[in-house]
Amino acid sequence: MASEFELIARYFTPAAPGFQAGVSLGVGDDCALLAPRPGQRLAVSVDTSVAGVHFPVDAPAAAIGHRALAISLSDLAAMGAEPRWCLMSLSLKRNDDEPWLAAFAQGFHALCAATDTTLVGGDVTRGELAIGVTAMGEVASGGALTRGGACAGDILAVTGALGGGAGGLALWQRGERDLAHPLLQRYLKPIPRLAAGQALCGLAHAAIDISDGLLADLRHLLTASKLGARLEPEALPLAEGLSVELGASAALQAALCGGDDYELLVSVPPAAWAEAQQRLAAQQLALTPIGMLQEGSGVTGVNVTGAHGWQHFYGAAP
Amino acid sequence: MASEFELIARYFTPAAPGFQAGVSLGVGDDCALLAPRPGQRLAVSVDTSVAGVHFPVDAPAAAIGHRALAISLSDLAAMGAEPRWCLMSLSLKRNDDEPWLAAFAQGFHALCAATDTTLVGGDVTRGELAIGVTAMGEVASGGALTRGGACAGDILAVTGALGGGAGGLALWQRGERDLAHPLLQRYLKPIPRLAAGQALCGLAHAAIDISDGLLADLRHLLTASKLGARLEPEALPLAEGLSVELGASAALQAALCGGDDYELLVSVPPAAWAEAQQRLAAQQLALTPIGMLQEGSGVTGVNVTGAHGWQHFYGAAP
Repeated sequence: MASEFELIARYFTPAAPGFQAGVSLGVGDDCALLAPRPGQRLAVSVDTSVAGVHFPVDAPAAAIGHRALAISLSDLAAMGAEPRWCLMSLSLKRNDDEPWLAAFAQGFHALCAATDTTLVGGDVTRGELAIGVTAMGEVASGGALTRGGACAGDILAVTGALGGGAGGLALWQRGERDLAHPLLQRYLKPIPRLAAGQALCGLAHAAIDISDGLLADLRHLLTASKLGARLEPEALPLAEGLSVELGASAALQAALCGGDDYELLVSVPPAAWAEAQQRLAAQQLALTPIGMLQEGSGVTGVNVTGAHGWQHFYGAAP
Repeated sequence: MASEFELIARYFTPAAPGFQAGVSLGVGDDCALLAPRPGQRLAVSVDTSVAGVHFPVDAPAAAIGHRALAISLSDLAAMGAEPRWCLMSLSLKRNDDEPWLAAFAQGFHALCAATDTTLVGGDVTRGELAIGVTAMGEVASGGALTRGGACAGDILAVTGALGGGAGGLALWQRGERDLAHPLLQRYLKPIPRLAAGQALCGLAHAAIDISDGLLADLRHLLTASKLGARLEPEALPLAEGLSVELGASAALQAALCGGDDYELLVSVPPAAWAEAQQRLAAQQLALTPIGMLQEGSGVTGVNVTGAHGWQHFYGAAP
């Protein structure tokens, strides 16, 4: 039976260390030693994914690995930060399922490679299956997108499309297992909008990633910016296949209240709108206006009784 | 019932933000934004404590909070780094036990305050009780203590006393509940040897903290340094009360193989020995020679059949 140390050596230590940008000392000592660049702020965030709460326990292992990292990187995207390093806390019920671990590690490492993120440390413990990822990135001092800078009159907009997270989960729960289905792709392998976040620095007044659901995350942005917003629900860009699979009403509900979309919700001043849309078009990514920031508080334009975004402790049955 | 956001606001957001050193943006946005100091390396480490695996589920909540942070800070201590910031991932089975949460938070925040560590972010999820702490600190570029720098002829030494972690756990399992008992103190409220690690920078050739047990952690240091060691078991400084409570043989076993001591194991060249001992004496902390680094590999001087340090997956029954 493999020990904690053997598992780390086998799956979580780079085969050929070589040069890793900004890493003075990587996996294998008491701490990693990193070299942040001068003039940059260090952006850090941690997110934990628990089996049966944040993802189905029978989801493909590679997707679980990808997703755990994507969720943390999405927080960097929402600040406009460039990812650099990460740490992983892996809690495993059993350690002898090597095919599972190999696929999990492959999914994780592939996203590391695609985003220039270096895994510099972590730990493996015994417990219910859970993955905590601390993501670290950099953003120019004073240049970060926060939740708190929105102004009345700003255009409220989202990247990509909404509802794919909740739609994909619904499909998975119905037994759909064709991983090429666009909604399953959206749910199982979300793409952190890193390039979009960086491109919007200096243009958007505020940003947040949509992890808890559009309405819930919009409320966080409004609270931080001390503003209200008017939403135009008919303007919401729906994920491919969502209306077909769920019907129009549930599709709208998924876009408004479903979690796990990992798109960016941004507040853009009208003067910067054309430039913002153009920069994202260059990334083949839609930026869709869905409303307007206004004085006051709360959200007008929607009437979703009892709707709330995803929250642990009342978002999901165990 | 409190939501994730309410719990974070209530227990994990500083009441009066005020000035926090090096924190451009703290708890409450997608990421924290930190300002590392120029010329320093960022030292980062994560450790997760799972109820029933790393601590008894009925341990005092304040001790659980203290301990989760102490374990991560101990990794910074072993690099000679100065703690600055931390993130906490808290997984809770239930969120309505507010007295438990308040005590847990108090234990955590008290150690933050005592060590100048600022909690800058984290998340709260539903799951088995587990706490992951990412600790971040700084150490002068080129000045960190690693596991890999030991030389043959170096004096092998430990700070403080050994066996208190295993001894305290044994006492707890026997039903001892007097938290003032020195062994319970050692187990439940370990003190990360931060000042000692910093004081040994520039003197010690290598260091590691003793979390898995002296022998296991010594082997990590030897592997990294490509050396062997000769131990003198009779020289091991035993924790107060250990022999009385466990008997001489079990006490030695606890000191050699028990985990959770969070002392530093260091390799000091003879020329720096007097200075090293003097610097730690100024902190009222013993530095005890327990052997010598030598060419070769493995450990001589002990004969502990089948003994190994703590490892998850075979260290403990669930």
